[in-house]
Amino acid sequence: MGEFDLIKRFFTRDTRAPQPGVALGIGDDCAVLGPTPGAQWLVSTDMLVEGRHFLSTVAPERLGHKALAVNLSDLAACGATPRAFTLALALPRADEVFLEGLARGLFALADAHGIALVGGDTTAGPLNLCITVMGEAPAGQALLRSGARAGDDLYVSGSLGDARLALEAFRGSVSLSAQDFETARRAMECPQPRVALGQALRGLAHSAIDVSDGFVGDLGHVLARSGLGATVQADALPRGAALAHQPLALQRLCTLSGGDDYELIFSAPPAARAAVQAASAASATPVTRVGRLEAEPGLRLLDAQGQALDWAVASFDHFKS
Amino acid sequence: MGEFDLIKRFFTRDTRAPQPGVALGIGDDCAVLGPTPGAQWLVSTDMLVEGRHFLSTVAPERLGHKALAVNLSDLAACGATPRAFTLALALPRADEVFLEGLARGLFALADAHGIALVGGDTTAGPLNLCITVMGEAPAGQALLRSGARAGDDLYVSGSLGDARLALEAFRGSVSLSAQDFETARRAMECPQPRVALGQALRGLAHSAIDVSDGFVGDLGHVLARSGLGATVQADALPRGAALAHQPLALQRLCTLSGGDDYELIFSAPPAARAAVQAASAASATPVTRVGRLEAEPGLRLLDAQGQALDWAVASFDHFKS
Repeated sequence: MGEFDLIKRFFTRDTRAPQPGVALGIGDDCAVLGPTPGAQWLVSTDMLVEGRHFLSTVAPERLGHKALAVNLSDLAACGATPRAFTLALALPRADEVFLEGLARGLFALADAHGIALVGGDTTAGPLNLCITVMGEAPAGQALLRSGARAGDDLYVSGSLGDARLALEAFRGSVSLSAQDFETARRAMECPQPRVALGQALRGLAHSAIDVSDGFVGDLGHVLARSGLGATVQADALPRGAALAHQPLALQRLCTLSGGDDYELIFSAPPAARAAVQAASAASATPVTRVGRLEAEPGLRLLDAQGQALDWAVASFDHFKS
Repeated sequence: MGEFDLIKRFFTRDTRAPQPGVALGIGDDCAVLGPTPGAQWLVSTDMLVEGRHFLSTVAPERLGHKALAVNLSDLAACGATPRAFTLALALPRADEVFLEGLARGLFALADAHGIALVGGDTTAGPLNLCITVMGEAPAGQALLRSGARAGDDLYVSGSLGDARLALEAFRGSVSLSAQDFETARRAMECPQPRVALGQALRGLAHSAIDVSDGFVGDLGHVLARSGLGATVQADALPRGAALAHQPLALQRLCTLSGGDDYELIFSAPPAARAAVQAASAASATPVTRVGRLEAEPGLRLLDAQGQALDWAVASFDHFKS
């Protein structure tokens, strides 16, 4: 069976019962989508390359999951309802086991979020996955990095750092128990985009971003776009279950600078604390209040004793690639 | 200057004066777009890989042009008005000359078609360009492959075959004069997407597709989706200026099976002939009537004498990679 027959076999689905907003899926020069009247359309694209975004050891199913998850996470950060995505794929060879697994992981996550594959492209080439996602939000309600206000509480969803811990274990710089390794590896390979939380925060949070590069770096984007500073209780950052067994220095490294977490950082006014807890409960997504946004520029990290933590001094060069 | 500074330098543009339909461009987790009320949204994605879609000898400016052109051609085939696109880029290294040229070619074509770059991603990796385009058409007016009807006239825009001729010249299988080589090379590297023609054909053409794989193959998609057959005057297919200097057998190969042409094949009822000519004139795009769609399945190719041309016998294995 040739490459294109394989692609067709695994990536063509019955589109006779169209999903909401999809007038025409795969099979023409373009997909035809029908935006909900009054909605804005949110778009993001991510490209995944072997060695940069995933290791060659990843199971195809998990790769399919992750390729879509990191894109859904961008929609989540904007509070959007996922609608449609395209997939472009460069493959070094037509491998049936690989494609079957990739499609399975991809569609399982797509179905869980009601998002339809509406277009694609396949070519021979070094392994590369490029997904573009589209979602909707009522006009003016998308959560943006620029909306944060001084005095806002700062929150983070779920937990941070296990994905980075897994990477360090793969690199051989830390040694984990079998159970912690599996926990951390799952965090790295199977991130859960916080789509339900993002939607629940519409009209409530002032700003949001997802954690792809690391808490400090991504919070920095919010501060820069909003023209604000922040004080963060660094040791209050929720850490992953595997990371919790590690020394404090490694915990700080992985929660503050880990990356690949795909949790949401968001801000909301103190008056909305009960509503934020309700949104957390409604979306079955834990959230932790970790600091406060302030007019004074800069990021101030405090340890558990309330002492300033000089993160610039806490070297992580040892771990950075 | 690092990779990301270079990207920022060449691909960040002033978005304070937003383009139609773009509420927020690059800089957040998602772009925010405002579809025109009542419009449908058309989406297509194409991934370009070195050696498959372009040669390593291509000038960066032409590569930038072509990466967007092949995507705009999909919007043209649906009669859509271009609105927004995303660009994901894997680069083996940060090369200032390359990126400057790429951005220049890309934005020149984007500006010519009023389409805004609204999102992107950049990573280190083997050279790969993935563009997703979005456009609009009034609800129900998108041109589709499936709309063709028996009795329709069959048309093709512009001319065919010069892109394939250039590829053969690069492969060394044909030898061209310097002028013909430049003409053919420009066709291969700088295709002009027929966006204006596509829009002019809305409400007029019954079906359309763009020629990326070759006339016979792409017409086959229309016939399959519409459940029809066709008779085509093969020697009436408009041939490129360089190809016109070549022997008839090579002309037939390059027009029928060349590929990479990015012209439109479309069908319209005979009663619309004057209107088709008016659309051609209004969009300053030549169109040629080359055959007719019929209820009888299959593709019948006729030569200039009206004799059946057995294309399966006219071997082109010599040229196929």
